[in-house]
Order: sequence, then structure tokens, then C-alpha cells
Amino acid sequence: MKVTNYLLGYKDLKIVQDNEMFNFSLDSVLLPNFVTLNKNISKIMDIGCGNAPIPLILSTKTSAKIYGVEIQKESYELAQETIKINNKENQIKIIHDDINELYKKIETDSFDVITCNPPFFKFCETSNINKNDYKTIARHEVKLNLSQLFNIAKKLLKNNGVIAIVHRPERLIEILSIMKENNIEPKKLQFIYPKKNMDANIMLIEGSKNGKPGLKILPPIYTHLENGEYTEEIKKYFE
Amino acid sequence: MKVTNYLLGYKDLKIVQDNEMFNFSLDSVLLPNFVTLNKNISKIMDIGCGNAPIPLILSTKTSAKIYGVEIQKESYELAQETIKINNKENQIKIIHDDINELYKKIETDSFDVITCNPPFFKFCETSNINKNDYKTIARHEVKLNLSQLFNIAKKLLKNNGVIAIVHRPERLIEILSIMKENNIEPKKLQFIYPKKNMDANIMLIEGSKNGKPGLKILPPIYTHLENGEYTEEIKKYFE
Repeated sequence: MKVTNYLLGYKDLKIVQDNEMFNFSLDSVLLPNFVTLNKNISKIMDIGCGNAPIPLILSTKTSAKIYGVEIQKESYELAQETIKINNKENQIKIIHDDINELYKKIETDSFDVITCNPPFFKFCETSNINKNDYKTIARHEVKLNLSQLFNIAKKLLKNNGVIAIVHRPERLIEILSIMKENNIEPKKLQFIYPKKNMDANIMLIEGSKNGKPGLKILPPIYTHLENGEYTEEIKKYFE
Repeated sequence: MKVTNYLLGYKDLKIVQDNEMFNFSLDSVLLPNFVTLNKNISKIMDIGCGNAPIPLILSTKTSAKIYGVEIQKESYELAQETIKINNKENQIKIIHDDINELYKKIETDSFDVITCNPPFFKFCETSNINKNDYKTIARHEVKLNLSQLFNIAKKLLKNNGVIAIVHRPERLIEILSIMKENNIEPKKLQFIYPKKNMDANIMLIEGSKNGKPGLKILPPIYTHLENGEYTEEIKKYFE
């Protein structure tokens, strides 16, 4: 069932969701609040934008033009509705395409910032999941894997342009290695912990195309208190 | 001036230090409390042990035989005194040698655990620091760099044996890359933050020789409260 909700914590923003589908999550709120935005940027791309929570939040933080690319028709349509309902058509443009094809038609070295909340799980051909299922595409690397993502980023980003992604800490080593292969220098890394005394379960990482070495480990973020409630830091995004 | 202090937080341990020299620090306390020790281990080596704070703390946590290697004569002598004053001669053996030479004389694949609080700074031949100065050797990679360290660890560690080091987060990428080159799989990573809302300034990392991939990001440690006092977590090591 399709519903329109306020994007919690952002009183002026609404988001169109389908309860049956893959809905926006904490990851999609953390990423646009993590990525480095400065006054000089003019073009941002969010790859695999879903129903567009990331472009929407970014639009409150920058006046740059924001492009969202989404391969799945159902999500693309929700994203279009989301942009319309928020009157963001002038700033945000959603494109229904496969980024693996789209990037070939776009000018190289033209983006200041790329964001992506990619599928988290590796896709194994022998697994018995449905490759065309909506949720599979959002969660498994069926249509886009990390090598493809960073290779595309390398092509689309301006020199010193940045790509920021959200992922799982288990894949840190692999992500750093793929970034290196694509001359994207890791500059900022932040870990999100579910509670005190627990291992990190979410990771935010940003790299700069042809950037100089110099990685900062940003302060940790806890999502929940001992009693299970959201921490103040997270509540501000969800209240 | 040479002094004997209690190793704070360890009521039964004393450490011999020279106030003019490079003294034991938080790093040396964090590392032995981070490294994975289990009941089956029988041989540990601490590379560049200084006046032996790490072997000493390890000795309270395991009954394994602990070897400390120290290239600098002054530190080696302090370490010897430290071991003696604590009656640890049966468990801890300090060796005065250059690990780059020593490892050739030792049986390969024989250690369960290696620890190291290495020099943190790269050494540049053109810099005008004194290569033979005591503090230079402890702080700059004059006698031991990370490639040498992990290459030696690869040789000395048993299969699935672990090496744990303390370092600066700025060098994470490089350390991961060197570990990979030496088939040492990163398994545990922990960041230490000076205060809330500040970037990490210390990093603890452990890898396993020929280990399976699977990195955990351990809970963050803060060293200081807003008012500058040590946190409870750190106080327990220093009170």
C-alpha cells in the first residue's frame, strides 16, 4: 500500500513509500548528513536513489543540482511523486535508468559529489534468491556491485570530487581496496554502533578522486541507549 | 634519572623507568588489554618492548611464555630490572637484539601471539633528526618499519596466530595493505577517541596469519571526559 509520510526529523519534507517495498531507513538519513558538502559544489548524483530520501535531505543542505538514478520502475515512480509533493522539481531530477548504462551517456569529470546506499549483500549466482525480485535488487549486488560503483564514480567525479557511501563494517577491507584501485582516496570514516559495548554495525565512508592520503576516523555514533530508545543524536533525525 | 614506579592500575606490578627516556604510555596499556589471548597459547613475543610494560601486563593475563625484544641497550636494561623486581623471570625473557636479525635465528611458525607498539612516524632520510638518538629510534621508523614488522610476524607466527599493534589512525590504509601483502587478515579494529565529538587518535588492530576474512569494529574507547579527567574505562588502568 502506497502511503505518504513526513520524513521524520525533517518537518518540511514528505516521502512517498510503499509498505510492501524496501523503505528508507537510518542509513539513508545518516549518509546525507555525513557527506562533505561545500558552497562551491554544483552537481550531485545519488546512485540507486530508491524513493529519494537522500536527494531530499541533501536538498535541505545545498543548493546544488541533485540527480537521483533508480533502476527499478516502482521506486522511480515513488521518487517522482516524492519530489513533486515537496516541490523540489527545480533542484532534484530523478532518472529511471541503469547506472551501468547511464554513465556512458554523461559527461565525465562533471560531478562534485556522488552518494550511494548500495545493496549490502554479495550476490552469488548459485543462491536460490529471485534475481528480479524488487527487494533482491535493493539488497543484493545483482545490478550493481562495489567495483562497478567506484569505477563509475571515478569516471563521473571531477578531480577531488567525493563519493560517500554507507555500508557494513565487514566489508571495509574490500571497500578500501576497491577505492584504491580506482584512485579514490579514503578521507573520512565513521562507525555507527547499535549500543554501548557492541561492535559497529554501520559504516560511512567518503573518498576523494585523486585525493591526497589522510584518513580521519570521525566520532562514533550510537543509535540506541541501553533501554532500547534512540539516542538524542538519532532522535533528531526521527522526531 | 632512573625511578621505579608502580604500574598504575596494576597494584602488584612495578616498572623501572628513566625520566629522561621514552616512558610507557596509554598505548602500552591498551594493547595488552586488546590482544586476543586464549588458554591454548604458549608463546608470545613483544617486539620493541622498551622497559617491558606490555610483557608485564600480559603476564597477568596468561601463563604463556613471553619474550620481549629490545634493540636499545638502555631500555633493555630497564626491562631486565623491571622483570626482576616483579619476580617474573620464569615467565618473561627479555632479549637485547635487533628483531630484523633475531628472527632469522628463531624457529618459524612458532609464536601464537605477537604484540608491538611500533614507532609511529615515518623516517625520512633527508630529515635532520638524529638517527641514533634514543627517542628517535622509539618514535621514528629508523630501525623497524611496518613492512619489516609484518613480514617478520608472518614468519614467526603459527598458522592462525595473531599480531596486534597500536598505531595512529592516519596510517590505517597503509597498515591494512601491508597486512594483506603478508597474508595477515585483519580481524579486530578498535578506535580510541580523546573526547566526545573528536576524531580518533589511537587505533588498535589485530590480524590473523592466513585467517579467514571477517573484520569486527570493536566498541569505541574514550580516554577523557569533557572536563579533561580520564574516563572510568581508562581510570581503571591508571588508578
